[in-house]
Amino acid sequence: MSEASISVAIVDAQTPGNVGTIARAMKNFGLSDLYLVDPPDLDPDGEAYGFAGQAREDVLPNAQTVPFEHLVENFHTVGCTAVTNTDDRRHIRYPFRTPRELADSLAGVETDTVVVFGRERVGLNNEELERLDEICSIPASASYPVLNLGQAATVVLYELRTVMVEETQLPDEIVRAPERDIEGLHDQFGTFLEPVEPVSEQRSRLRRLWRRLLGRAHPTRREVSSLRGVFRRAESQLRESRDQNK
Amino acid sequence: MSEASISVAIVDAQTPGNVGTIARAMKNFGLSDLYLVDPPDLDPDGEAYGFAGQAREDVLPNAQTVPFEHLVENFHTVGCTAVTNTDDRRHIRYPFRTPRELADSLAGVETDTVVVFGRERVGLNNEELERLDEICSIPASASYPVLNLGQAATVVLYELRTVMVEETQLPDEIVRAPERDIEGLHDQFGTFLEPVEPVSEQRSRLRRLWRRLLGRAHPTRREVSSLRGVFRRAESQLRESRDQNK
Repeated sequence: MSEASISVAIVDAQTPGNVGTIARAMKNFGLSDLYLVDPPDLDPDGEAYGFAGQAREDVLPNAQTVPFEHLVENFHTVGCTAVTNTDDRRHIRYPFRTPRELADSLAGVETDTVVVFGRERVGLNNEELERLDEICSIPASASYPVLNLGQAATVVLYELRTVMVEETQLPDEIVRAPERDIEGLHDQFGTFLEPVEPVSEQRSRLRRLWRRLLGRAHPTRREVSSLRGVFRRAESQLRESRDQNK
Repeated sequence: MSEASISVAIVDAQTPGNVGTIARAMKNFGLSDLYLVDPPDLDPDGEAYGFAGQAREDVLPNAQTVPFEHLVENFHTVGCTAVTNTDDRRHIRYPFRTPRELADSLAGVETDTVVVFGRERVGLNNEELERLDEICSIPASASYPVLNLGQAATVVLYELRTVMVEETQLPDEIVRAPERDIEGLHDQFGTFLEPVEPVSEQRSRLRRLWRRLLGRAHPTRREVSSLRGVFRRAESQLRESRDQNK
């Protein structure tokens, strides 16, 4: 975990629902400090609170309304925009970082950062962007790169989770079965094949195929032990039935 | 680009606005085929179309209403859920892939995949999930991992852009200035320092500091040439003023 703090600011939002959506995404991805510049009215019975999920309990009621200057003066500022310049002839919207690059760079720095999102449709204007320190832009389809404000913030905050979330709801990683268990399954599969496929070359081919299939799937311990059981029982029944038919 | 096609399905959505939000994210991230299982009424003057942005022109009107079985029978199916099992004692929600892992795995496979999102609040139920091939879950804060339906889909589709978007709106990469231009700037900075800082050891220290700063910033050609100009002009004015004062 970095020592960085990351806050969010929304400038001149028109739609209370978008403020609620952003507050929810903040809570989903481990952020809590929200600043509002020229916000719409946030009625506790309206869409902002309706869209905020559990962020209605903290992020949204604790949001602070501040002037734009407050952000510039107190934070390392990152302005988000869908529209960048494509080369370095104009610096207002260039160079930029993608959200993932932003997360990587902030993870390594001790800084109080605020990520700034602009109004619906037109986003942050040039006068605002040129006062901010960095530009962040979400890679999207060239034919329609403009995300809705709430969705854009959701994507950026999703990427920033790696800086801010100490513990996700997911287990760290899927635990692959120990190699010897997997080899035991391969052996069991081979023994199972003997009564099923009389031609030795075909059995070898099937064993290779089976090894490749499991090799890509990274089976868990439970999967391996369950399948071993299946093939063992199948093999034993096949042998019984063959012995009875002798 | 992969040969894969990726479609989206929404099961039993209650809120038309979420369907519109998902349609917009699809268009933003290069997907077009939307399937709806038990959808709400999508009034052309209602929230679905209101939230869809430019997807109101194609993704949304072209969406097909199908039974759940249609997905299972015709696609490689991926079910999205915030709630996973944490180990392999139960397989309905385990193992899972994160959206990024899903994108990586689909990029390498020729398959018609459908990514399936469930109803608001409760998501896909166990009966539905056990009929689907893979599980996908978004890493989020352990204390509040449940995203809004539209936001969850936005994050997953954002990650899948790497499979489906041929060209983003962003230039491929920021072009760093050629090394010799940067070295030229370093030299110019050094010459500029001579009249500014008389102590040679201090000049060396400042030059190292300057080299480190630019080394982290990966300056563009324009930045380098502009700064060279600045230091050249400053140096020449400093020398003039010194010569006059002699």
